[in-house]
Amino acid sequence: MNQTIPHWLEKQFELNPNRPAIEFENGEVLTFSELRKESRQAAAGMKELGVKAGDHIALLVTNSRQAPIFIHAFSYIGAVGVMLNTRLTPTELAFQLEDAEVTSLFAEESLYQQGKEAIQTTSLTQKDFHTLEDCPRLSEESELKSTLHLEDPFTMMYTSGTTGQPKAVVHSYGNHWFSAISSALNLGLSSHDKWLLCLPVFHVGGFSILMKNVIYGMPISLFASFDEDKVNQQILHNQVTIVSVVTVMLQRLLDNLEERFYPSAFRCMLLGGGPAPKPLLEEAHDKSIPVFQTYGMTETSSQISTLSPGDAFRKVGSSGKALHTADLIVEAEKPGEVGEILVCGPMVSDGYYKHQERKSPWLRTGDLGYLDEEGFLYIVDRVKDVIISGGENVYPAEIESVLTGIRGVKEAGVAGVQDNQWGEVPAAFLVMEPEAEADVKEMYEYCTLHLAKFKIPHSFHVVKELPRNASNKILRRKLTDTLKDGE
Amino acid sequence: MNQTIPHWLEKQFELNPNRPAIEFENGEVLTFSELRKESRQAAAGMKELGVKAGDHIALLVTNSRQAPIFIHAFSYIGAVGVMLNTRLTPTELAFQLEDAEVTSLFAEESLYQQGKEAIQTTSLTQKDFHTLEDCPRLSEESELKSTLHLEDPFTMMYTSGTTGQPKAVVHSYGNHWFSAISSALNLGLSSHDKWLLCLPVFHVGGFSILMKNVIYGMPISLFASFDEDKVNQQILHNQVTIVSVVTVMLQRLLDNLEERFYPSAFRCMLLGGGPAPKPLLEEAHDKSIPVFQTYGMTETSSQISTLSPGDAFRKVGSSGKALHTADLIVEAEKPGEVGEILVCGPMVSDGYYKHQERKSPWLRTGDLGYLDEEGFLYIVDRVKDVIISGGENVYPAEIESVLTGIRGVKEAGVAGVQDNQWGEVPAAFLVMEPEAEADVKEMYEYCTLHLAKFKIPHSFHVVKELPRNASNKILRRKLTDTLKDGE
Repeated sequence: MNQTIPHWLEKQFELNPNRPAIEFENGEVLTFSELRKESRQAAAGMKELGVKAGDHIALLVTNSRQAPIFIHAFSYIGAVGVMLNTRLTPTELAFQLEDAEVTSLFAEESLYQQGKEAIQTTSLTQKDFHTLEDCPRLSEESELKSTLHLEDPFTMMYTSGTTGQPKAVVHSYGNHWFSAISSALNLGLSSHDKWLLCLPVFHVGGFSILMKNVIYGMPISLFASFDEDKVNQQILHNQVTIVSVVTVMLQRLLDNLEERFYPSAFRCMLLGGGPAPKPLLEEAHDKSIPVFQTYGMTETSSQISTLSPGDAFRKVGSSGKALHTADLIVEAEKPGEVGEILVCGPMVSDGYYKHQERKSPWLRTGDLGYLDEEGFLYIVDRVKDVIISGGENVYPAEIESVLTGIRGVKEAGVAGVQDNQWGEVPAAFLVMEPEAEADVKEMYEYCTLHLAKFKIPHSFHVVKELPRNASNKILRRKLTDTLKDGE
Repeated sequence: MNQTIPHWLEKQFELNPNRPAIEFENGEVLTFSELRKESRQAAAGMKELGVKAGDHIALLVTNSRQAPIFIHAFSYIGAVGVMLNTRLTPTELAFQLEDAEVTSLFAEESLYQQGKEAIQTTSLTQKDFHTLEDCPRLSEESELKSTLHLEDPFTMMYTSGTTGQPKAVVHSYGNHWFSAISSALNLGLSSHDKWLLCLPVFHVGGFSILMKNVIYGMPISLFASFDEDKVNQQILHNQVTIVSVVTVMLQRLLDNLEERFYPSAFRCMLLGGGPAPKPLLEEAHDKSIPVFQTYGMTETSSQISTLSPGDAFRKVGSSGKALHTADLIVEAEKPGEVGEILVCGPMVSDGYYKHQERKSPWLRTGDLGYLDEEGFLYIVDRVKDVIISGGENVYPAEIESVLTGIRGVKEAGVAGVQDNQWGEVPAAFLVMEPEAEADVKEMYEYCTLHLAKFKIPHSFHVVKELPRNASNKILRRKLTDTLKDGE
């Protein structure tokens, strides 16, 4: 079987040249023909600067107009794109540039200083460092790729690194392609679809929407950053049918929505980025918002398990079942028990750059979950975040979900602290609503109603904000840092 | 990248156990759970009879209830299914059984005699011959496959054999999978879809609908044979949204439809099996029927080029563009000229059983076509059916298309006959409407209005029916046999 497909943007140029590909916040629209043309011109320019097939090229970009253009430029050259997180420090960036054996860095003009500082401690010199604005645009004389081999590497992304040393996940074209296809098999595919992208494109969740854009030939709306009012406007008035969000975004969308309702054409709020508090899901349910909770990670090229349209309202809180081409098991002694989640499928990366390739088809996710009697997945927590208190497993996410149900609590994080008697005990970190006061006694009583005794936080700490990584996941191990500083 | 996916029927059992999978004409419905159970029971029974992974097992079936069950049974064992054409003579069947190195033949009870005669001249004995009805059904104790490797062979189908010695096209699981996915990317995918299957399942056009059934998790309506009234009833009153047909079927559907119109939910009449007469397409157009003409063959695992929903009414007569994962070129000196069509993509079979594997990714189709200025494909004819008359290329399909526009002409076939002056000249073979009379003078005059002089048939022959193969394609080389008999 021939594992080669036409270059996806060439194919869209052939099939849908005049269809809108990307809408920007300022109202500009690029058609597939225009997106192709600009991507090819950037590719030719990069070649002029010496970029070759197989090179590892780092990209330091926000969700800007140039981001998709340079991402597609990589694929026209056959270079591997190392997607850098713009929120990292120069030291962290330098580690990734070295570790990924990057030969050139391309950065947005606005991130020039950050890039410049990053290369100081690396083997890269100023001549290996370019801004996107300075990269020449050439009108397509150079030879560009017209096909894509599904086995070839396309991107590297460092894992969020909430724990341990970051490693570069290598994604092939096929990983991204199978991910997009599997999502379409789950959600269906309509010529009326428009997907709003407000997650960072340097993370796989945002990046995957750029892939769906060119694999399906579907218009997307690209947002520089998340803004609940603008996103709601897009859904209410600009025919957006699907949005990918993480928990805090959903909360802010709901708060902003107030008494309004989404149009019936809006068909999917794809919710990723970890376990979601039940009160939030119930609030969305009450507003008839079709929230499809997903489970995935950088290694799985975004979602690998997602709730289906038919089950969205029946299985609130579940991340559904493994997508069509994927498989998922929970390593537990008995069915229904909590255990580590293992996944496999053609969207799962073969491994990390410069690390030994995984021997088994199964990837150990480091996440805990269980399957209900119908086989629906419920995420419990990270293996490493589990608090062991008096021999009992305590899952921070479960406690956080209860805490966010307390009146006045906006966000909650839970982590373990040392305890002489129990080994570890849970501590709660709360961000309160602007006007709200924290009444610890009331909170404690609320918890006794909803949690077993050993799960009730031993202390409640009001903080201004929770430490989060660039994908808005709570960094639980940093919660207790606040504690040390504050006490 | 891991080229393994969960067994598609296992996946549907996991995702949609209680969704209707197959509806039969008698009203019976099999859910995905039931289809899986029966397929597994048949697989276990076949194993009991000695069938092993890798065996070549021939299947002699009509579009019966048992057909999909045994096809899936093959995949649960890992056996390769050799799909036999029920309209073949015992001698033709014997050739295929020997050529494909078949070790067992499974036939429907009603085809027992045909199977028995076929094995007489082969190395198969009576103990290698089973009826589906006699095959035991065992409740799943034996080990069955839970995954499918996209590279593994799944089916063999002999090419229609309108010319030359038949050869077995070997399809991998991946060929069928990519074909189904590419069609979904073109047509979209809705949870309301129901596809009607009235083409023989032993041909790739019908077989591919059984694949979409389990790959999408989409209900299908399986018809034992084509009946225009019943098919129209399904579209008008039973929520069928897509039907695959060949030209004669479309004509009969239109005649039967009379003044009625299809509901707006009916979204696609997928028309394959060769060039279609323009008057027919125009009639469908006038009735607002979304006909998507397709181009494909056994080697491409069904359609490889199809008109898109957006172009159905704008490009009547075109077979559209190559599907998302496929590519297509016309080998001509200048753009827009007629030439042989070459195709490639992951749905294209690697080759024929016991023949050398194709070295180039491109498959020479033996079909002639051209691309218009927007890149839309128009099929002209088979390379081998071209009539060379006085040095000019004459394409029978073009003449047939004109002839079917004549009042009273129901079907038309054109083939070349020897001519002393011109080398070859076209001869017309016509099936008239029941009440109609053939007026040769009138026909000739009609042709002079629509065809260049060298394309006008030198003789007109009224026949009761046109010789067609089991996929309803006109066997042009047999047209002139009628002539020899009749004159």
